[in-house]
Amino acid sequence: MASFTFRRQLTIEWGHCDPAGIVFNSRFFEFFDASTWLLFESALGVKAQDLASVHNIVGIALVDARANFLKPAKFGDLVELASRISEFRRSSFDVEHRLSVNGALAVEGSESRVWAVRDKTDPDKIATAAIPADVIAKFG
Amino acid sequence: MASFTFRRQLTIEWGHCDPAGIVFNSRFFEFFDASTWLLFESALGVKAQDLASVHNIVGIALVDARANFLKPAKFGDLVELASRISEFRRSSFDVEHRLSVNGALAVEGSESRVWAVRDKTDPDKIATAAIPADVIAKFG
Amino acid sequence: MASFTFRRQLTIEWGHCDPAGIVFNSRFFEFFDASTWLLFESALGVKAQDLASVHNIVGIALVDARANFLKPAKFGDLVELASRISEFRRSSFDVEHRLSVNGALAVEGSESRVWAVRDKTDPDKIATAAIPADVIAKFG
Amino acid sequence: MASFTFRRQLTIEWGHCDPAGIVFNSRFFEFFDASTWLLFESALGVKAQDLASVHNIVGIALVDARANFLKPAKFGDLVELASRISEFRRSSFDVEHRLSVNGALAVEGSESRVWAVRDKTDPDKIATAAIPADVIAKFG
Repeated sequence: MASFTFRRQLTIEWGHCDPAGIVFNSRFFEFFDASTWLLFESALGVKAQDLASVHNIVGIALVDARANFLKPAKFGDLVELASRISEFRRSSFDVEHRLSVNGALAVEGSESRVWAVRDKTDPDKIATAAIPADVIAKFG
Repeated sequence: MASFTFRRQLTIEWGHCDPAGIVFNSRFFEFFDASTWLLFESALGVKAQDLASVHNIVGIALVDARANFLKPAKFGDLVELASRISEFRRSSFDVEHRLSVNGALAVEGSESRVWAVRDKTDPDKIATAAIPADVIAKFG
Repeated sequence: MASFTFRRQLTIEWGHCDPAGIVFNSRFFEFFDASTWLLFESALGVKAQDLASVHNIVGIALVDARANFLKPAKFGDLVELASRISEFRRSSFDVEHRLSVNGALAVEGSESRVWAVRDKTDPDKIATAAIPADVIAKFG
Repeated sequence: MASFTFRRQLTIEWGHCDPAGIVFNSRFFEFFDASTWLLFESALGVKAQDLASVHNIVGIALVDARANFLKPAKFGDLVELASRISEFRRSSFDVEHRLSVNGALAVEGSESRVWAVRDKTDPDKIATAAIPADVIAKFG
């Protein structure tokens, strides 16, 4: 289990919220995606936009996303989002996201992603590849 | 298991897609949310915006959302989204969403929601209530 | 002034709306963008995703967007959006969008776009090109 | 002309960008809206979510929004957004937004907003009211 954790704070915007005055569910998945990129940037020391070219991959493709909504987040709330890799497998990994409002866990999210490369026989297709050991090592 | 299924077709827009040219993950959760409202409107014969007042509830609050991405959807793709209640419990229920591109399942989604009412002792809080039998019956 | 008009109806979704219960402003610009693609698809008889390759362009790049909000649109409202080219110039054009709620004009939008091609001397850059006469003719 | 300027930096996210790899136009209007709230919070010393109750208004309702796209912003770009009130009128005002990438102006935006209150004769309607002199004064 990787211990490297990326934390950021963000303030909930008017445009994030729905008529109930709370963050609309899809926004949390935007927050998670952005934090996963920042987690990699932070752990690997490579800018998010250079991740694919530096590692000769297509990207870190999302195959599963999930969120459990425990408490609402409202307009103006300062939230903290803590993200880390909870498991590395051969060519895939899970990211765990914990979003807190005023110190209380509000949303638990998880993503499963694959280390995606171009298929050698059909460059229009995507295949998965083993995640390099040195990449995994940088997440501690 | 409820058999009433709401189906709709939508065309993937330029603005739904990311730099990889495929639908960005959070958009699918927007599609699911909209289909759940339409599923209720269609099954109950009550306009989505009147659902809360007609049933004296705050809403059908989302507590869990999940998506499994099997195949990408691209700009211009005509997709079909089929949604139904997969399980009713006392005060909560699950919605199953199946999004297909060219007849092939591309994204499987699920939502868990609660029948939400105002808390009697604290109107600022939300409580859950039993889903009326006649509501459940309308989903067949 | 082109007379060809593309009309579509859409229903305002919960997720389009803000804590005031009305459509959040950025959503109208999504609606306009999607309608512009559909306007071209409809006038030219070419699928939106094929527009660039068929016409050997990079796209119809947006250089200016504007909206004037006259009346709000709310969750569940069925709105009509009518879009047409209000002016063609040599390599640019204006799209006029009129969004109505219950027959009353609610939002007036406009976009200015250019017929964008790859720069011949620097393929990483975008240049503009003259819009073909047969393209303009199809907008009547 | 008000001189008080609110500046913030933000990094362009993957999910902000379209298949051309650049920020999709509607996102800029989200950025502008968020900056306007922060501009008021910063100038008035009142949290954005308390602005309405402190000033006994419904809000600062948007009546016109516009953006002029000069240069694209791409995934990973660190952008600076500078926002200020360019003009106060009796019950309305204009906000000017200037978004720069690497020090070069990329998008010029403007919003017109009104100081919105409940209509005294019909509380379901919105009316405009004179902006208090002490509010205007705080924008210097």
